Order: sequence, then structure tokens, then C-alpha cells
Amino acid sequence: MTKVTLQDIKKAQETIKDIVKKTDILESTKLSIMTGANVYYKCENLQRTGSFKIRGACNKIANLTDEEKARGVIASSAGNHAQGVALGAKMSGIKATIVMPQTAPLAKVTATKSYGANVILEGLVYDDAYAKAVEVQRETGATFLHPFNDKDVIAGQGTISLEIFEQMNNKVDTILCPVGGGGIIAGVASAAKALNPNVKVIGVQTSNIPSMKESLKNGKVTTAFNATTIADGIAVKTPGDTTFEIINELVDEVVTVTEEEIAQGLLFLMENQKVVAEGSGAVTTAAILSKKYVPEKDENVVCIISGGNIDINTLNRVIALGLSQSGRRFTFNTDIKDQPGGLGELTGIIGDLDANIIRADLSATDEIGVLNAHMTLETFNKEHIEKVKKAIREAGFIIK
Amino acid sequence: MTKVTLQDIKKAQETIKDIVKKTDILESTKLSIMTGANVYYKCENLQRTGSFKIRGACNKIANLTDEEKARGVIASSAGNHAQGVALGAKMSGIKATIVMPQTAPLAKVTATKSYGANVILEGLVYDDAYAKAVEVQRETGATFLHPFNDKDVIAGQGTISLEIFEQMNNKVDTILCPVGGGGIIAGVASAAKALNPNVKVIGVQTSNIPSMKESLKNGKVTTAFNATTIADGIAVKTPGDTTFEIINELVDEVVTVTEEEIAQGLLFLMENQKVVAEGSGAVTTAAILSKKYVPEKDENVVCIISGGNIDINTLNRVIALGLSQSGRRFTFNTDIKDQPGGLGELTGIIGDLDANIIRADLSATDEIGVLNAHMTLETFNKEHIEKVKKAIREAGFIIK
Repeated sequence: MTKVTLQDIKKAQETIKDIVKKTDILESTKLSIMTGANVYYKCENLQRTGSFKIRGACNKIANLTDEEKARGVIASSAGNHAQGVALGAKMSGIKATIVMPQTAPLAKVTATKSYGANVILEGLVYDDAYAKAVEVQRETGATFLHPFNDKDVIAGQGTISLEIFEQMNNKVDTILCPVGGGGIIAGVASAAKALNPNVKVIGVQTSNIPSMKESLKNGKVTTAFNATTIADGIAVKTPGDTTFEIINELVDEVVTVTEEEIAQGLLFLMENQKVVAEGSGAVTTAAILSKKYVPEKDENVVCIISGGNIDINTLNRVIALGLSQSGRRFTFNTDIKDQPGGLGELTGIIGDLDANIIRADLSATDEIGVLNAHMTLETFNKEHIEKVKKAIREAGFIIK
Repeated sequence: MTKVTLQDIKKAQETIKDIVKKTDILESTKLSIMTGANVYYKCENLQRTGSFKIRGACNKIANLTDEEKARGVIASSAGNHAQGVALGAKMSGIKATIVMPQTAPLAKVTATKSYGANVILEGLVYDDAYAKAVEVQRETGATFLHPFNDKDVIAGQGTISLEIFEQMNNKVDTILCPVGGGGIIAGVASAAKALNPNVKVIGVQTSNIPSMKESLKNGKVTTAFNATTIADGIAVKTPGDTTFEIINELVDEVVTVTEEEIAQGLLFLMENQKVVAEGSGAVTTAAILSKKYVPEKDENVVCIISGGNIDINTLNRVIALGLSQSGRRFTFNTDIKDQPGGLGELTGIIGDLDANIIRADLSATDEIGVLNAHMTLETFNKEHIEKVKKAIREAGFIIK
């Protein structure tokens, strides 16, 4: 079977050491208190380019022959792989072409260009960009860099485990790792199990695209797709065959989390850890918060935050969701009198209780003399919402 | 004059070393490219309790007499000082009482309680909490911990500079530091100037509350307040006399940034550095982005991010503002025909250009047959907005 050895990974670490940052390990006081375990984060969102992808890309590029290097590299990606390849190529002094869909966020296009890559914008979706990349590759003879299904890429990602063991003084019981195509977890598991066969390696996927979980169940590479996901970094419908083989051999379990759990994980990381994760980076936190993985008392658990390149529009939606769920926003409908003072009566009650009205929409109803009021309030917490609801009801309003 | 010596600060470092985390230094690739300098962040938002305050609180507590320790400590705060004192007391095994206003965000109350402090909720504003704290202090004889105007507190905050010099291998030209009451910058400047008198120390305040800047201008402690601020951590109308003396002697300059610049700084840190800062933590980034401080080519600049404890409602507002300013949200009004298909014509044009409508409100106008449409769109960038505007105008709509 395919094998990425500890030696491959140690060699990769030496190869990429001047380019890749040894990212910080942070303790999650709150998750530790909640679980009774010792929970840590390996912060690859604080890695250069905002994700772990730079590790594999750099190692792959370094292992090209001089002839291949002279012809340059090419990749198609709207995400982290683009930036990883672009910076990796720049640091190695070789030419990179990245094909991105025209719809890629400007921030990502600008970042990729700023690393000196030749960026081609093509088509509206990833497949258009991929087709263009294949075309350019044929014309130029550049090496196409696969984002995960490649031994050198896997060895590069595996350097994360070497750092974890060093930073934790080998006191690691379990590593939680996001799974998409399988590149990061294949590398992480290869190094971790070689360093200590008793370490558990748990993969986390979104339940919307549980392709690796299905593949493991079926004992072969399987395509799976239920719906789109906010965790775009792990939105891979069909895992790689190389990554599958390694994961099938080494990974203890793959669990899944829902989109809502991912959103809660993301918000938790911002509020409690002060770091920004992208959806795929937050799945490991989501797995612990949602009890899809329950650590034992005093277990030393490291959650890998794989990246932080989240679109700000997406982040905005996640925060709005989180505000409602945590009692800091309250939206309701009620009927008010269609007459002077009608809205004033309602808003007076709300203001007296220190809730802040941030939106109020009035509209006609089927009943003469009655308007519908759609209100959104900022509140302190769930008890505050209950207090506001009680006062509104006691004044004769019906909350719908 | 009052002096906090390098020896005081080195002693503080030894005193607090088991409690306080040596926080990471991150390079800001983007600010470095923008300025031609080498810009780094000292991430005290990743400190335990989410801010630097734990440093000073721990050092102060450690320097109490046994008799004082036996009577415990008391503080009033709705913010970072509360959490710093609570954790500092817990780690030192002494009793802490923290008085917070009832309106304090639940997350902060819960965090302070989780560190084992006795939390008293009193009144709606800080002054109520302060009055209650004075009352409790008189009854119990506990030591009142001042948040900044105290030599032991200043020495504790100064340990940030020791770490910066060590982590940067002494290659530091300039340190940018937030200024409120002056505790952090007094400590930072005391250590930095002792280690290297050529290092520049620049303070940054919000222009809404430029109390230290005014004090320096007047050569004496001066109260200043123009308006409230999202940088609540540095919302101090009157600096301390001890901190003022040190800052007047050692700090090179204090610059101010506007609320909008702070919001942009905050968003910049989230998007480019993947870290969450609170308003006061983002002022140093804001100073560079807004060119209130312009570094020279190859200058080694360290921006201190003092904390990350931002209220999620505030964060939500900042993001919404940032989306508009960076061309990823576009809100406009236009008139449409009050007839079947009236809105459809407008939305068709928008959809064809891949802009996403996230809000549409129609309302009557003074003119028969005409409705006003208030639309909010998600867009890719400013050019995309121009494209959408052009298409809408070419179809005969007037954008208001």
C-alpha cells in the first residue's frame, strides 16, 4: 500500500522550514473546563497564507526536478490551495499559474497575485477554472499540482504532527483533524502514529459532504454529496485514492458535524479563543461542542484549526445566527393598534427593560385597525429575552 | 519622579511566569508590503483572559503582604480588568470580589465567575459598580486594585516589552501601543527605553477620548471626552498621575484614530491576520492603516494588540460597516412601477450580474403608480457594484 513514512515527513520539515511558520498552540480553557480534558488548538489559521496548504505545496515544489521547476507549476483553485501554491512557488523562485473562477472573492485573487503568481480568471465555477488549467498545462508543460492526492503534499501536511508533538512535549492522546480530500489527515496520521501508535487520530467532516466517512464504511473510495456547506475547504465529493488508503489504515474514526454545529464552532472560536477560523477550520471545535467526540477526563486533545480564510459575508451570517442562538438577539411579530401611539406603547415597554430595538417593520393585516409589527431587538441574554417577553405579554400583546 | 525600573519589570516577569502566557508574535505580511517596513503584532488578545490585564493584576497581587492577601482583593470593572483580577487571584489562591454593572455582557460575567471570583452585579453603569465596590471594600478591608495607576500594575504590563525584545532578537525600532489610563504604555515604555533608548514608543488613542494626548499637550493630567467609543478598553476620561508622569518622560508621541479607522483596523485584523481584536486592541493597526503613523522603509514595527474581548453585537456592526466600505455590500433606493412585474424587472438585472439580493423593502411614494424599492445586495467588489449600477441605469432606473 501507499505509505508516507516518518522519514519522508521529517525530510519535508527540513525542506520547508524557512518558508513555513511553526504555528502557535493555544489552550482552550473553556473547552477544558467543559469536558474535563485538556483541549488545545493547533492554529494553522495563523499560518502564512492563512492555511496549512502552504506546507504541502512547498514540499511538492521542492521535490520537482530542475527541468520541471524550469517549466513552472499550475493549479486551479478558488481557495487555500491557490495561495499555498503561489507563495510556495515564489519562495522557491519558480513560476506559478493559478486559474481561479471569475467569482472568486477579490481578497483571494489579490492575495494570490500578491504572491507573484500569474492569475487567470476563467468561468463562473471551479470546473471552468479546472478545464482552463488543463488547457494551459498542455500548452506550457507546467506541472499540475494536485491539492491532496500526492505523497509529497501529504508529507508536507504531516509536518503539523511533528510540531504538535514537540510543542506538547509528546503529551498527546488525541488529534482531531478536518477531512476533505484527505491530504491533511493522511499526513497528520502518518506522522502521529509513527511517533506513538497509541495516539488516536479522529477525522471530522461536514454531514453535508461525508465522502470520507462513506468511503471508509464501504471500504473503497466513494462519492458523497448531500448539500453545499459553509466549510468550503473540505467540500470534496470524492476523496483521493492515495489519501483514502492511508486514512483507511491509520485513522481511528471519522465523525460528522452539521452546518449549524460548524457555525457554533466558528463563533465559539471567535468569542473564546479570539481567532478567526474558516468553516472547515471550525469542524474540530464543533465536534467537541456537539459531543460527536467526547474526550475522557484529563485526555490531552489537540484540535487542528486548518485555516482562517473565511469570506466576510459568510462570517456575517454566522454571527447573526450565533446572536439569536445565544440570546443576544430576539426577533418576534405582534399585532399593534393602527392608531397614534400604537407602536409607542410597545417600544416603551422594550426600552424600559434596556433592550435595544435595531429593526422595526410595520405592515397591514387582514383586520381593520390592526397592524403587524415585526421587531428585532438586541438583548443581554436568554433570561433578558424572557423578561422582555413577559412584560410585553402582560401589557396584552400576543407574541407570534 | 515616579520610575518603574527594568529591574522591577524583570522581577515582575519572574513573579508571573507560571500564570501568564508568552503570547505569539505574528508578522503582518500585508502591512509590511503596504508600508515597506516590517510590521509585527504582539498578540495580547491571545493572552489568558483575552487581554494583557492579567499581567499587572498578577504582579500586584503577588506583591501584597500576607495580611493583605488574607483579606482578599476587590475591583470594579465591566471589562478586562475584572477577568484579569479574577484569574490572578485564583492562581494566587486568594479571594477576589468583582463588582460589575448589571448590564455587563453575560459572557464577561460568566468568564469572571468561572475564575472563581465572587461577582456582585450592581447598577446600570460603571459608576454604580464602583460605588458598591468602595462600600464593600470598607466593610471587608480587602485591597482595592486600581486598573492602571499603580507601580506594580505598570511593572506587570511592562513584561510585554521584555517578551517583544526576546522574540524579535532585539531587532525592534518602534512599538505602537494603545493608551487609555496609561498602564500598558507606561510599562511598555519603561522596559523598552531601558533596553534600548533609541526605540520609539508611540501611543495610540481614540480621537473620541484623547485624554493622554491632551494631558501631554498641557503638561499635566487633563480630562478629555468628545464622544463614546467602540474602543471601550481605552475609554478613560482622566489618565492616572503616575502613568502620566512616566509617559510624559518616556513616550515619543501619542496619535489618535477615528472610530471608523478603528472599525477598519478591526476588520483588517480579522481578514488578514485571522485574529479577533477588541476596539482598543485594533487602534495600533488603525494608526498604520490610516497613516497616522508612517514607518520608514525596513523599520521594525511592533503593534500591540492589547485584547480581544469584543462584544459580538459590536463585532456584527463593525463587519456590516466594513462590508459596505470594501464593496461587498451595496444599498440603494430606486423607483419601480407599481404593477405586476415591477420588482421582477429590477431583480432580473441584478440576478443576471450575480449580485445577491439580501434585503428588499417596497413602499408607497407620493406618486400614483410608483413604488420605492430599498435594496441591499451582496457584491464581489467595487467594480462589481459599478457594473450593477450601470446595468440598472441603462434599463431606465434612477438610483437614489
